[in-house]
Formats: sequence, C-alpha cells, structure tokens
Amino acid sequence: MGMTMAEKILARHAGKTRVSPGEIVMARVDCAMMDDILGPRVQIADELKRLGASIWDRQKVVVISDHYSPAANVKQAEILAFTRRWVQEVGIEHFYEGQGPCHQILAEKGFSLPGTLLVGTDSHTCTAGAFGCFGTGIGSTEMLGVLVTGQIWLRVPESIKINWNGNLPEGIMAKDVVLKTIGDIGHAGATYKVMEFAGGTIRQMPLDERMCLTNMAVEAGAKTGLIEPDDKVFDFLEAIGRTNYEPVFSDPEAVYSQILHYRAEDLNPQVACPHEVDNVRDVSEAAGLRIDQAYLGSCTGGRFHDLVVAARILKERRVAPHTRLLVSPASRETWLKASRSGILDILVEAGAIILAPGCGACLGLHSGILSAGERCISATNRNFIGRMGSKEAEVYLASPATVAASAVEGRIVDPRHYL
Amino acid sequence: MGMTMAEKILARHAGKTRVSPGEIVMARVDCAMMDDILGPRVQIADELKRLGASIWDRQKVVVISDHYSPAANVKQAEILAFTRRWVQEVGIEHFYEGQGPCHQILAEKGFSLPGTLLVGTDSHTCTAGAFGCFGTGIGSTEMLGVLVTGQIWLRVPESIKINWNGNLPEGIMAKDVVLKTIGDIGHAGATYKVMEFAGGTIRQMPLDERMCLTNMAVEAGAKTGLIEPDDKVFDFLEAIGRTNYEPVFSDPEAVYSQILHYRAEDLNPQVACPHEVDNVRDVSEAAGLRIDQAYLGSCTGGRFHDLVVAARILKERRVAPHTRLLVSPASRETWLKASRSGILDILVEAGAIILAPGCGACLGLHSGILSAGERCISATNRNFIGRMGSKEAEVYLASPATVAASAVEGRIVDPRHYL
Repeated sequence: MGMTMAEKILARHAGKTRVSPGEIVMARVDCAMMDDILGPRVQIADELKRLGASIWDRQKVVVISDHYSPAANVKQAEILAFTRRWVQEVGIEHFYEGQGPCHQILAEKGFSLPGTLLVGTDSHTCTAGAFGCFGTGIGSTEMLGVLVTGQIWLRVPESIKINWNGNLPEGIMAKDVVLKTIGDIGHAGATYKVMEFAGGTIRQMPLDERMCLTNMAVEAGAKTGLIEPDDKVFDFLEAIGRTNYEPVFSDPEAVYSQILHYRAEDLNPQVACPHEVDNVRDVSEAAGLRIDQAYLGSCTGGRFHDLVVAARILKERRVAPHTRLLVSPASRETWLKASRSGILDILVEAGAIILAPGCGACLGLHSGILSAGERCISATNRNFIGRMGSKEAEVYLASPATVAASAVEGRIVDPRHYL
Repeated sequence: MGMTMAEKILARHAGKTRVSPGEIVMARVDCAMMDDILGPRVQIADELKRLGASIWDRQKVVVISDHYSPAANVKQAEILAFTRRWVQEVGIEHFYEGQGPCHQILAEKGFSLPGTLLVGTDSHTCTAGAFGCFGTGIGSTEMLGVLVTGQIWLRVPESIKINWNGNLPEGIMAKDVVLKTIGDIGHAGATYKVMEFAGGTIRQMPLDERMCLTNMAVEAGAKTGLIEPDDKVFDFLEAIGRTNYEPVFSDPEAVYSQILHYRAEDLNPQVACPHEVDNVRDVSEAAGLRIDQAYLGSCTGGRFHDLVVAARILKERRVAPHTRLLVSPASRETWLKASRSGILDILVEAGAIILAPGCGACLGLHSGILSAGERCISATNRNFIGRMGSKEAEVYLASPATVAASAVEGRIVDPRHYL
C-alpha cells in the first residue's frame, strides 16, 4: 500500500518506514518558527528560564517579527524590543524584523524545504507546503515543548487530494482556485486533514501562486496544505544555495480520504463574502458593491506575481477617488524586485499607497484599519467579523486581479473586464 | 520707515497701507487648511451645522488627512472616514488623504503662495514661509471663525532677522542651521515673532531645505518663519501653473526686534538632545550613543533633497543590525521622484524600511513607535518626552545626513565621517 507525501514526511521524522492516518507519532522538527505576536513573549521566554532549559538547536529556530512592525503603539513597540533582546540573549541568529510576513521570509530564506517538518506559532505556517514541506501552526505551549525537545507529537492526518486540471482563463488566479475549493468543502471540510493540491493547473503555477493555495489550507481546517515539489521548487532552492533536503512524493497507490476534480476552464473569479471564508460566490454575485478600501498584501496576496498582475490592470488607470488602495509587498525582497521592475511606480502612479511589508491591516493590527460601515476587498486570507478593524466593517476576499480592478472601479468588479 | 515682509503681508490682508508691530488687525485669509487630527471632527463640523453657517469660500479651504493615514486602529479609521464624508457633504474639492504631511502637500499643490496669508490647524503651518507666504497654525475654534468669515484677527508680530552667510560645509544641512539658531535663541526666544531667515546661505538652499527652516520656526515660539521668495520659488510655481500671486519683500530700512548673524563655515552638525528642541549641541557631544531607531520623514525631514543626501551616505553601506531605519517620504510626489531616481532602492538595499507618506511616528501615532528604553535619532521637529511613543524613550533631532550616518554606525555619529 502506498503512502501520501504527508505520511512519508511524518514517517521519516518519526524514524519509521511507514505511518498510517490516525496513528500518533513523535516527530523530529527541522525548523521551529516563532513570530512576535505568539512567540517568545507568550510564556516561552519565561518558562524556558523557569525550567532552566535550553533550546535544543538554536540553528533550527527562526524568529520573525512581522505582526507589530512598524509598531503602532507603545505596547507593540515593547513586544518588538522584547523579541529583539530575547534572540540576542539566547543566541538565535535567524532573526528578522520588519522584513515581511513570516511565511514569505521562511520561503525566501530557504527554511521551507521539501520533505521537512516545520512548525510555527502562526496558523498559516501551512504555506510551506508549496515547497513540499509539512508546515503546520502550533500554539505557544506546544512551541515550548519543541524548543526544549526538538520533537512534537502529531496524529498522522488523512489527506484529501484536490486535482485541478486544465488552463486557468486569463484573469483567474490561484486565489480563485483556493476560494472555490474552500467554498465547496467548507471551512471545516478538511479539519485535521492534509489538502494535497495536484494536477496540471497547479504544476503550471509559479511558486508565488502555489503559496497562496497552501497558505489557505487552514481556512478549511486542514493541518497543512501540500504540493509535490518539482523543478520550479528545486531551481528556486538551488538559486538561494539550499541543496540539503530530500523531497518526497505521493505514491500513485496512496490512499486519500477524498479526491476532488476540478476543471480550470470552468472557473470564474471568486469572492468570499462576509463574514466567512467559505461564503464563496462567483464575483458576479457581489459585483457593483461600492468599496472604500482595496488591500493587496499579507502572506496570501502581496507576492511579486500578485503585484505584477495588479500592475497590469492598474497601468495607466486610476484608483477611484472614493477608494483607497493599500499595497503591502510580501517582503523586503518582493519590495525590491517590484521596485526594480517598475511595478511599484505603476501602482503609485495609479494612486496606490505602498506600505511597509508586514501583517498590519490583514488582522486589524495597524496600517489600514477599517471603520464601521466601510467595505474592503482584500487579497488576504480571512474575512471574519472585525478581522480588519471595526466589527461593522465588511471584508470581501478575492484575487489580486479582482482587488486591483475593483480599486479602479470603486466597486467590486470582474477583473476580466479590465484585461 | 520701511516694513518687514510679514508686516507687508498683514497690511495687504487688512486692507491697509501699513501696519506696525503690536497693532491688532482683521486680516483676510487666502487659504484655510484643516488636517484630520484637529480639523472638521473637532467641533468644526458640528458647530457649522448648529450655527446654520456655510463656508465663506470652499475653493479656499483645503482638507488633508495625514496624521491618521494609514489608520492604525478603529478610532483613527473613523476619523478618516468622517473627514472623507464631511468634505463630500460640504463640497470641498481640495481634499487629500494619505498623500503626505499637510505642509508638504500645501507646497506641492501651490497653496503656499508668496505674499498670501495661510492658516492651518497644525502648528507647523509656518512651513509655508519658505515661499514667502505668511503661514501660521491656529486652533479649531479659530478655524471655525475663519471658515464662516474668511477673516482672522491677528496682532502684528515683530520680526527677528536671522542672517546666515557663507557656504555650508559638506555634510551640514538646513536642519543644522535651524537647530543652531533655536539652540541660541531658545524654545521661547521668538515667541509671537516672525523668524525671517536671510543671507547668502539661505539663498543657496533648495526649496526643500528652506522648508526645513521655516517649519521649525514654531519650535522657537514664532508666529511664523519667512524667507524672501526668489527665482527658485517663482520657477517652481510656474512649473506647477501658479502665477496668481504678488510677492512681497522686506524693505532695507525695515525694523527688526533683533538681528542675528551667523557664518555658515563655522557650523558643525547639530543635535537637539532630549527632551527639548533647544537642548542643542554639536554632534560630537552626543557621538557614540547607541541608537535603536533612525527616522527620516515628516514635514521636516523626508523631502526629496533629504532622501538624496541620505542615499549618498547609505549607498553600498548597511544599516547596523541592532538599528532600524524607517523612511517616510514627505509625500506621494516625493515617493515617486525618489523611486524614479533609484533613491528608494538604495535606501532599501541598505536596510531601510519605506513607510507610507504621513505623520505617523513623528508624533507617536503609529508606524514606528518607540518602547521604553529605546533611543531614536530623528529628522523630525520635536523631541518632547513621549513624542514618539514611550515616555521612557529618547529622541535626538538631527539632519537627514546625521540620521543616515548614525543608522549605519548604530550610534550617533558625525556624518562628515561618511562623506
């Protein structure tokens, strides 16, 4: 009997030749990531001291201050300062502040490696699955255990295989693919399972797009999202000098709890309407709704490919006067690449405001908060009540193409009208 | 007996041939600017409604949301939304949100005109003096009167003439000039007076530098700062299509309450040490102090010339690992100009984080707040206790050159070492 790639990764990390769904294993962790919001400052630093325990392998720990940068108040500033002091104190070298959302940084710096196990104190740690890495979000208490032992216990999850085949029509993006999928299976439809994305449509996608898919796996409750690594992954890793990994692939006879099939050609632009990620409709059902803010950014929707697509739509157009378009590039590297390609200039010429890379507005911490009565179309991953500010604001999730076109229109619109 | 340029502007706006210091006049206002923080939302909108009064001339009113953009919390977002709604409701066309600090926008859009009288709900409205415009900050109650009547009563101020002659040494900037001046006369040394900057050093300065001088006049208590307009001003205004103004110049025999003389060649880089703007020392007295944050931005220090100077120092250098360098270009136009010239790339390559144009960190509202124990070197205009965040943080004011060099060093340093 074959194994899925998720099972193979967990078997390898449990020191076993095979594992089966439902089995509980103690797995060796390759990389433990803490962010600022749920990282060292939440018990972890204090408890390590109280226990007199030291970190199992400081080279395998990455700390990324992304949520509170740039600090919007003294409390946020104190968390940034605390985190800085702590990494210095305990001697953690892999530390990044203000460089962008953690999942993007993990990818760029080569911590999301095929066949490895990565845990992080952020629910979207599943993003790493775009590289064939089993990435999953854990709580701070769990992280304390990982930091001391280098291991974590996990129940081996079942996998759902989600096949997308065919060519996505012009103007349709990975975000539409994943929203459609989540709309179908529901926000709890993959609870504690792995969402394995496969098929020709996925293989055609650049890594930026694949990361949007795996990033949102947790929005259907999944333990992680995974995509089999291919040359795009291997070439990227070679380019940044990472070769110390062993990829895994799902066996043809692997067992899935569910197998879904989609035809890319049938897909229309999707929006997740307030206030649930699985409240997904064709954009036509929301078209015409006036928007106050359009947001491109976060670990879901501010990558280079996203900005390229947005710039294609915004070039020589202007954002509607009653709408603000905020763009937070997904990282410092993304910022530089987009700037050097002239993309940022195009966005600003159209009326966009470029924010520092970071998590800010996506989860209502700073840098683009919504007031009561405001409506936002956003390339981010959650539209829960109050997510981006006021509980009386509305957030519609959509692709960067739909966000950009809607910014021009000042209303939600099908981006295909703007191609 | 001759008149100062301040007296001439007030005489003209009071419909008189001459006025003298101490005299109280009722003056016609050419432009009334409100920002988001002390603008419409502070009584003004409500009181206008309660009075059943309408605005004397909507074309002469400018509303600029700069302090709360991008909003860092729901309250800030609600002020932005309120301001947007209000300008729409009352029909004010000159409205800018998120384009940069108001004084920069007033200049760029040609509202700071030679020989005119401009009032604004922000203390640094004196910035307009770089264009030979009598600009002064007023409270919201005063603004209500201006909006209804188009007039304001003023006591004609005395003027202090501040002559700077000679060539500024390489690495010395307008900020050093104005800090030196304020250090000498004290934070109340020009209370209710006009600081008229004159002399060859000032004439050599680009407009960006002159705006730094007049901006800080209020830090010595001045009613405004003024500089006689010249071809640099006239050429700039022609380029943006503004020709409807009549400049004024001080008479040779004008009477000043005080005349100061400085030699530019003698000036060293200056820093204003905590917690007063007039606690000014040569940079050598603060050199070596470790800094956590370096800040380039605001209506004082984020203009194009400032960024050019910073980029010259930061090119092919790196910001110290323990220091964050935050850069908020002074406006959308500044952002674009700096981006197109490759300046922003140089700054980011050096490790800077580019923020949206706005007031944010300068007055501790968002986008770069300091925690207790942190020390910041800043190109802004105030270093009062708690100004940029925690009351236990320290702010040193300095030129963009000193800020940039100190960011590289991670400590306060004389920028001439980096030329």
